[in-house]
Amino acid sequence: MYLEKINGPADVKKMDIDSLNELASEMRDALLHRLSIHGGHFGPNFGMVEATIAMHYVFNSPIDQFVFDVSHQTYCHKMLPARQNSYLYKENFDDISGYSNPKESDHDFFEIGHTSTSVSLACGLAKARDVKGKNYNVVAVIGDGSLSGGEALEGLDFASELESNIIIIVNDNDMSIAENHGGLYQNLKLLRETNGKAECNLFKSMGLDYKFVADGNNIEEMISALKEVKDTTKPTVVHIVTEKGKGYALAEKNKEAWHWCMPFDPKTGKSTIDFGDAKDYGEITCEMLLDKMKEDKTLLTITSATPAVMGFTKDKRDLAGKQFVDVGIAEEHAVALASGIATGGGNAVYGVYSTFIQRTYDQISQDVCINNSPVTFLVFCASIYGMNDVTHLGIYDIPMLSNIPNLVYLAPTTLEDYKAMVDYATTQNEHPVAIRVPYDVFEAGKPQTKDFSKLNKYEVVSEGNDVAIIALGSFFGIGEKVKEMLADSNINATLINPYFITGTDDVLLESLKDNHKLVITIEDGVLDGGFGEKISRFYGNTNVNTINYGYKKEFLDRYNPEDILRENRITPEQIVEDIKNSL
Amino acid sequence: MYLEKINGPADVKKMDIDSLNELASEMRDALLHRLSIHGGHFGPNFGMVEATIAMHYVFNSPIDQFVFDVSHQTYCHKMLPARQNSYLYKENFDDISGYSNPKESDHDFFEIGHTSTSVSLACGLAKARDVKGKNYNVVAVIGDGSLSGGEALEGLDFASELESNIIIIVNDNDMSIAENHGGLYQNLKLLRETNGKAECNLFKSMGLDYKFVADGNNIEEMISALKEVKDTTKPTVVHIVTEKGKGYALAEKNKEAWHWCMPFDPKTGKSTIDFGDAKDYGEITCEMLLDKMKEDKTLLTITSATPAVMGFTKDKRDLAGKQFVDVGIAEEHAVALASGIATGGGNAVYGVYSTFIQRTYDQISQDVCINNSPVTFLVFCASIYGMNDVTHLGIYDIPMLSNIPNLVYLAPTTLEDYKAMVDYATTQNEHPVAIRVPYDVFEAGKPQTKDFSKLNKYEVVSEGNDVAIIALGSFFGIGEKVKEMLADSNINATLINPYFITGTDDVLLESLKDNHKLVITIEDGVLDGGFGEKISRFYGNTNVNTINYGYKKEFLDRYNPEDILRENRITPEQIVEDIKNSL
Repeated sequence: MYLEKINGPADVKKMDIDSLNELASEMRDALLHRLSIHGGHFGPNFGMVEATIAMHYVFNSPIDQFVFDVSHQTYCHKMLPARQNSYLYKENFDDISGYSNPKESDHDFFEIGHTSTSVSLACGLAKARDVKGKNYNVVAVIGDGSLSGGEALEGLDFASELESNIIIIVNDNDMSIAENHGGLYQNLKLLRETNGKAECNLFKSMGLDYKFVADGNNIEEMISALKEVKDTTKPTVVHIVTEKGKGYALAEKNKEAWHWCMPFDPKTGKSTIDFGDAKDYGEITCEMLLDKMKEDKTLLTITSATPAVMGFTKDKRDLAGKQFVDVGIAEEHAVALASGIATGGGNAVYGVYSTFIQRTYDQISQDVCINNSPVTFLVFCASIYGMNDVTHLGIYDIPMLSNIPNLVYLAPTTLEDYKAMVDYATTQNEHPVAIRVPYDVFEAGKPQTKDFSKLNKYEVVSEGNDVAIIALGSFFGIGEKVKEMLADSNINATLINPYFITGTDDVLLESLKDNHKLVITIEDGVLDGGFGEKISRFYGNTNVNTINYGYKKEFLDRYNPEDILRENRITPEQIVEDIKNSL
Repeated sequence: MYLEKINGPADVKKMDIDSLNELASEMRDALLHRLSIHGGHFGPNFGMVEATIAMHYVFNSPIDQFVFDVSHQTYCHKMLPARQNSYLYKENFDDISGYSNPKESDHDFFEIGHTSTSVSLACGLAKARDVKGKNYNVVAVIGDGSLSGGEALEGLDFASELESNIIIIVNDNDMSIAENHGGLYQNLKLLRETNGKAECNLFKSMGLDYKFVADGNNIEEMISALKEVKDTTKPTVVHIVTEKGKGYALAEKNKEAWHWCMPFDPKTGKSTIDFGDAKDYGEITCEMLLDKMKEDKTLLTITSATPAVMGFTKDKRDLAGKQFVDVGIAEEHAVALASGIATGGGNAVYGVYSTFIQRTYDQISQDVCINNSPVTFLVFCASIYGMNDVTHLGIYDIPMLSNIPNLVYLAPTTLEDYKAMVDYATTQNEHPVAIRVPYDVFEAGKPQTKDFSKLNKYEVVSEGNDVAIIALGSFFGIGEKVKEMLADSNINATLINPYFITGTDDVLLESLKDNHKLVITIEDGVLDGGFGEKISRFYGNTNVNTINYGYKKEFLDRYNPEDILRENRITPEQIVEDIKNSL
């Protein structure tokens, strides 16, 4: 086996083409081994095996610097400079992250997990090299799907002005996570069909040199192309055509489903995890929206290249037809588009991950909130129980969204809350409304009849005295538990579900002063700039004390949620202890 | 006079070409009249007179819908549908804003002030039209300078998928505020030089139909071109060439200086406002950075198309040479570029308006802060005394920036603070550091020797008891005044300058508990998610009361800062009254 013995790129450079092809085969086996047990990004890595080998063969990493866009296609890159054990041996799986990571290796320069940044980051590396008067290659690798992101296009536009070495490998597998959307993909198609010879060329129109590689899964062809551009003094695009999922028949056939995988049986491709029959909020949202779209032909559901987060698999997208709009990776456009739809008399619902909504702060503020466009935002995976990679945290959306004027940000606890809020948001014309979709489906068993058009009216679920618990959204359950446990000690706490993240119920808060010494808040988000601090400000100059429960402001990475809850004293036991100490 | 008598676009449609040309001349007179007395955006409007007349002649506004990018070139559009008095008569100047505004007229659809959004917004209007089954034209007008913004490119890419009517007028005056930057401008040049015939065409590569108009300042030519594309069923770009500042010799000659103007003498072009000799933070920053760039050849100063905010006029940019980087309107790219520079061993300083830094939240969080890249951000006009249009507010940067982990956000009070902070930020390698540049230069008269590398250490300026005043940045002066006034009533307040926005000095705050009943905070920003709330959270479960002074969360527009201070009780008199009532 070659892979086991590679100590770094120098060993790759010594190999002949036959050995390199054998190495590629071993790397696919290693990918399959890890991914079938551990899960992860499948398609992007299977497609990049040969290109990555060629990069390490031709260039001199880490003197020559590689930046991988999104970096979910760096698995092969990680194998070559001495991290292969994390693909070969189960006991080493957790030694590495799923993204590029400078803490793991000198061959990685950034922690990256959001798309469309690689060209800009590489431009920075190149600029630093130039002012230091050094000479080495800077290479960005970006997938065709990421090209629709505005930052990538900004980067391409700027790159030509560097007037020095930067090589941008465009890995064209004709896919985003789902199919691509946007006019530029017609140009990529034209370039593929003309062997790169078409005069109309997006990259050339941005002022870049251009080279086409018809088979990016052919090591020899890749090596030859990269050798030609190595040490170029002109910003250059190398447009390579690869197959997503290459080498695993099921993934070649169903590219969208195999973009990312849970653990599976390599023989059948079937998941080895049984999720049972329980519905998740993706499916529930999709069903609701499909129903609504039937009734309201002006309702448009928007995604920025992650339709599955709302349950819109291919069959469901087909059902929705023109009422489902995938803008590709282009969150800023998605939000401004939504504002335009609402202003034009349509009804726009934008579903997006908490971690990605931060890619469009300005458009939410300017295009939607200043204009008070009645857009509906559905914010998914906004929880400590969401994704747990440092680049994909779901605990920062409250500080980001809730301090923007005019936005109504709602936190449902139950399925019934959620449905009532979506009904409210999509049938009103007064406000932009965002809904923080819970991570788990919890049914109250009774309909939610609250009138959400009366803003910032919290609900007193049960009245007590001395201490009031204001427990937000999916952490209302912790509040309930705290109340129960306090009752065991003969403390009769008031329990409040605020529902509204973006405002304080001043009348209710004022009334609590009469017979409460302490008001605590519990939220599934970072404390700084969050919900609880607003309550503490309200009571700042009164006799009511407050304690805010939430997370410390820090970048967490590959954590266990229960650990984080304990560290931040958000378990019911700890909260009860604090309350007793305080009263 | 024609202009006075126009009651709407219908009247324009009745006119012959000679009259329209006469109207154009009257409109330039009206622009000159208003701008010389009131100030505003000069160059963009002088260049758009003929194109705007042609738009209203050919299309049927407001049935046909116009969206103007940035909307600082809508003055001519505003004149035609019945807002001309605000250009003709001084007493009506304040009836209108400097941007498009649906509150003023049915012919405006959005309040817009940030760039690169028009295509996306127009796509939304078109999409809404299509799902409603209606037929009318949707027209976006975007300047060439705005094309480098990622959102504009996202919009162009998406537009072709509409498969229905959208007309994008690209107003190419070969200028951003300053000169353009980026490879795509070579393509626009090529298209100008080939009369639009070059095969390599950015817009066609995005899948759009394309039409070229060589003289966009010729009404006949414009009318003829727009008639051809009217009612098109294909997404179409009309690339028109205009001259920025057309018709006013000084503005034609010095396009950058005349992008925007203060009141001036129309004969000489000289400003009628005497600013005296006092230096502002733009000039001060430019001098400091030029000195630093001489000493540190790896220091790169970055702007995203607003070099003047840092004092980098053309002559200063020439002095800085390759160490000054204008990325064009591309804030996301600017921030990722800065992270790349820092990671590559360079030293990056990005100067940006408070209102525009919000265009790059995700890059600050992901590319800079997760990677802890030691980038320096200089945040200008972050104050109630900054720009006062609703789209350009400078009071939201604290909630946006200060809740992102790893970022150190500093608030200087004096010139000496500012210089010491810039020195610190640009010579350390530990943290991303942002500095909130004050609006007024106030010299302490003694050097600032504080060691800012010891994070979150506030400074007790004078010790007292009962009440502590924590006054942030440029509002420290209000704190001083409050302390003085309290002294007159024999209240000896503690006065604290926190300097650090992003963290609490827990040791100091803890120590205040001993002999203080009340801690107040004063900040020049919105309260929600801001600095003061963190102090209130800290003291939530103690005997110390708190009051936070700052602004209510709302979108202000064309306000008087003193009114806002009074409404939010941030005058020294009001604060003293509150403190006395509280003690």
